[in-house]
Amino acid sequence: MSSVIQVTLPHTSYNIVIDPNSLGTIGRYLDSLQLGQKVMVISNPEIFNYYGKTVINSLKKTGFEVFSHLIPPGETYKTLDSISQVYDVALKYRLERSSTLLALGGGVIGDMTGFAAATWLRGINFVQVPTSLLAMVDASIGGKTGVNHPQGKNLIGAFYQPRLVFIDPMVLKTLPVREFRAGMAEVIKYGVIWNQDLFNQLEAQKNLDSLDNINLEILQEIIKKSCQAKVDVVNQDEKEAGLRAILNYGHTIGHAIESLTGYSQINHGEAVAIGMVAAGKIAVKSGMWTKEMSQRQDDLIKKAALPESIDKSLKSQKIIETLQLDKKVKAGKVRFILPTNIGKVDIKEEIPSEVINTVLEEMKRT
Amino acid sequence: MSSVIQVTLPHTSYNIVIDPNSLGTIGRYLDSLQLGQKVMVISNPEIFNYYGKTVINSLKKTGFEVFSHLIPPGETYKTLDSISQVYDVALKYRLERSSTLLALGGGVIGDMTGFAAATWLRGINFVQVPTSLLAMVDASIGGKTGVNHPQGKNLIGAFYQPRLVFIDPMVLKTLPVREFRAGMAEVIKYGVIWNQDLFNQLEAQKNLDSLDNINLEILQEIIKKSCQAKVDVVNQDEKEAGLRAILNYGHTIGHAIESLTGYSQINHGEAVAIGMVAAGKIAVKSGMWTKEMSQRQDDLIKKAALPESIDKSLKSQKIIETLQLDKKVKAGKVRFILPTNIGKVDIKEEIPSEVINTVLEEMKRT
Ligand SMILES: NC(=O)c1ccc[n+]([C@@H]2O[C@H](COP(=O)([O-])OP(=O)(O)OC[C@H]3O[C@@H](n4cnc5c(N)ncnc54)[C@H](O)[C@@H]3O)[C@@H](O)[C@H]2O)c1
Ligand SMILES: NC(=O)c1ccc[n+]([C@@H]2O[C@H](COP(=O)([O-])OP(=O)(O)OC[C@H]3O[C@@H](n4cnc5c(N)ncnc54)[C@H](O)[C@@H]3O)[C@@H](O)[C@H]2O)c1
Ligand SMILES: [Zn+2]
Ligand SMILES: [Zn+2]
Repeated sequence: MSSVIQVTLPHTSYNIVIDPNSLGTIGRYLDSLQLGQKVMVISNPEIFNYYGKTVINSLKKTGFEVFSHLIPPGETYKTLDSISQVYDVALKYRLERSSTLLALGGGVIGDMTGFAAATWLRGINFVQVPTSLLAMVDASIGGKTGVNHPQGKNLIGAFYQPRLVFIDPMVLKTLPVREFRAGMAEVIKYGVIWNQDLFNQLEAQKNLDSLDNINLEILQEIIKKSCQAKVDVVNQDEKEAGLRAILNYGHTIGHAIESLTGYSQINHGEAVAIGMVAAGKIAVKSGMWTKEMSQRQDDLIKKAALPESIDKSLKSQKIIETLQLDKKVKAGKVRFILPTNIGKVDIKEEIPSEVINTVLEEMKRT
Repeated sequence: MSSVIQVTLPHTSYNIVIDPNSLGTIGRYLDSLQLGQKVMVISNPEIFNYYGKTVINSLKKTGFEVFSHLIPPGETYKTLDSISQVYDVALKYRLERSSTLLALGGGVIGDMTGFAAATWLRGINFVQVPTSLLAMVDASIGGKTGVNHPQGKNLIGAFYQPRLVFIDPMVLKTLPVREFRAGMAEVIKYGVIWNQDLFNQLEAQKNLDSLDNINLEILQEIIKKSCQAKVDVVNQDEKEAGLRAILNYGHTIGHAIESLTGYSQINHGEAVAIGMVAAGKIAVKSGMWTKEMSQRQDDLIKKAALPESIDKSLKSQKIIETLQLDKKVKAGKVRFILPTNIGKVDIKEEIPSEVINTVLEEMKRT
């Protein structure tokens, strides 16, 4: 059974379809969108190897003229240069205003494909087929598209909405388990910041650390609730003025750790997990959250086999200095998103460095 | 006395200010927009040499922190590579979401600056200070921004609206006269397609061929009516679905001539002038327009010292073949925007090639 989330924005609307084992019928979903004949699938060789044929055959069967273009995997290829190559093939295949770019991949492919779609002929159709858990519940939703500048992530980009987000959770079976867990960090985040039901459902699971340990129907519901959480938040704040900031729960300290460890040993989801543990403890110390709720959050993080502690080689003072450089910091004051309940957070403008320091020290791995 | 046109779009609104001899007070106009502190002026060395200091001093006096970046003049620099350099300086000067890119130049600078503003940090503030007549009445209005692909004009871009369009017609005093006339072709176009008043006002002028021959107040009114015409048309059709096509009056044959002459001997405005003469004659032959009205249009074109005839080296058959390659052609049928009155046009889907051929032959220079 498929689930559908209808996203309604002031100037456009689209569906997020979650339909297990249905990748081979994707053409059907595009058929109803009144797109032009040409569809160009953008993917990377790994993912295309698994799912390219299935998608392309389905699109062809529906009557589309289908092309494909592959970009090597990895964040290092999320560049303006890769976009320039997409333009070249868009020209080669004579894509028109009514043509479609379809992203088949994780957040890297999704962000790039969206930006290319936003800027080719000043905007052509864009369809998201996220294949990583993180892309399903986070990157594919909200209209942020873009690429990195050599000196900073996601500095170049546009807000651009897809015509459809199509999720077949079964593609997660080939996703490396560490990537699965990274996505699960964002799922847990939605439980904490927005949806108590989701949180409870996650608590009811024995394991959250791999696809094999989660019932498919439960997974579908978890993905649906996560997408809905992001849609709800973003819809109330499409261009990132205020509320959208709560999506950065766990990301303040998370980003600092990612940047200090050179985006290598620790992946984004792991850093966010550590950041949520820290934020939870800061909230407890600030009298905003109960110790018991904080523990419940940390138990979910453990169940997803995500890290809860900080390597002792990472100096707390360094983390705090890095926080102060973050662009989300207003006038040197570190702003935190902190829980006040299960499913509820608040934005707290000024957290004393001593509190942050104490919490970071407590989290040191022994 | 300044004129102001208020542009109201579903998701934003801004003013077009036309204020002769006021470039030195531009800071004042930006002051009321609640922009961040940093403004980066994008221009080319020619134009910056004339007006850079005036603009920068005014902005500084108002309290802005001002930077500048120059791009060599000419359509050949309207590339993704130039945009990439704008990104580099945006990073160097640490522009923020609230910062502003200000385009000081013709359509080339305006289109590029708009695209960079649309895509840096997913959109920062954008101000247009058009310095060519064409940019004042056409390129700066309507939200189209972008750059060329090596194989085609304006293929890369975005729809992005400015926060302000600021026009000081006095900067036209340094504009090469041939560029002035090119802009006048678009002005005449608005008279024919949209505004009978404007047409009559142009008829009342003795000369339209250079700034020296036009009274400043009249020029201001002409610019205002032209801007208003474009705003009216675009507002009813922001994303180019239908009505906006009438702005292509004179451009169908015009583009064919530009492309056949390699965008060199004949400039855009001259090609549009020839295209309008041709379209007028086609309308007469199709029984849609009177010979007398067509003559009145051609007289305006003559008064602006714009060409009315086609060099005999240009084969009519070649022009017709080129028309059929144009992307605006649906299924091989040449679609024309043709006048039905002064200030009124209609879209005609199928014009027989014989009619086009006869008209082109009539227009051959003898
Ligand atoms: N647009 C947004 O709002 C938003 C939000 C969050 C993250 N992002 C961006 O998303 C990116 C991270 O996304 P990600 O975590 O999906 O990374 P990713 O796209 O690099 O994918 C992670 C790895 O998993 C592989 N993979 C993906 N799906 C697979 C599958 N089904 N089977 C086998 N392998 C598969 C990929 O090839 C890649 O090696 C970052 O660039 C980030 O900036 C964007
Ligand atoms: N965005 C739109 O809707 C739109 C509409 C029409 C045209 N355009 C684009 O606009 C461009 C053409 O614009 P343009 O005709 O202004 O060309 P341009 O920007 O190249 O300017 C023409 C020449 O005049 C010079 N110049 C401009 N202002 C001057 C001044 N005040 N004093 C001295 N020299 C001056 C420039 O340096 C240049 O050499 C094209 O790239 C076209 O694609 C865009
Ligand atoms: Zn995240
Ligand atoms: Zn034109």
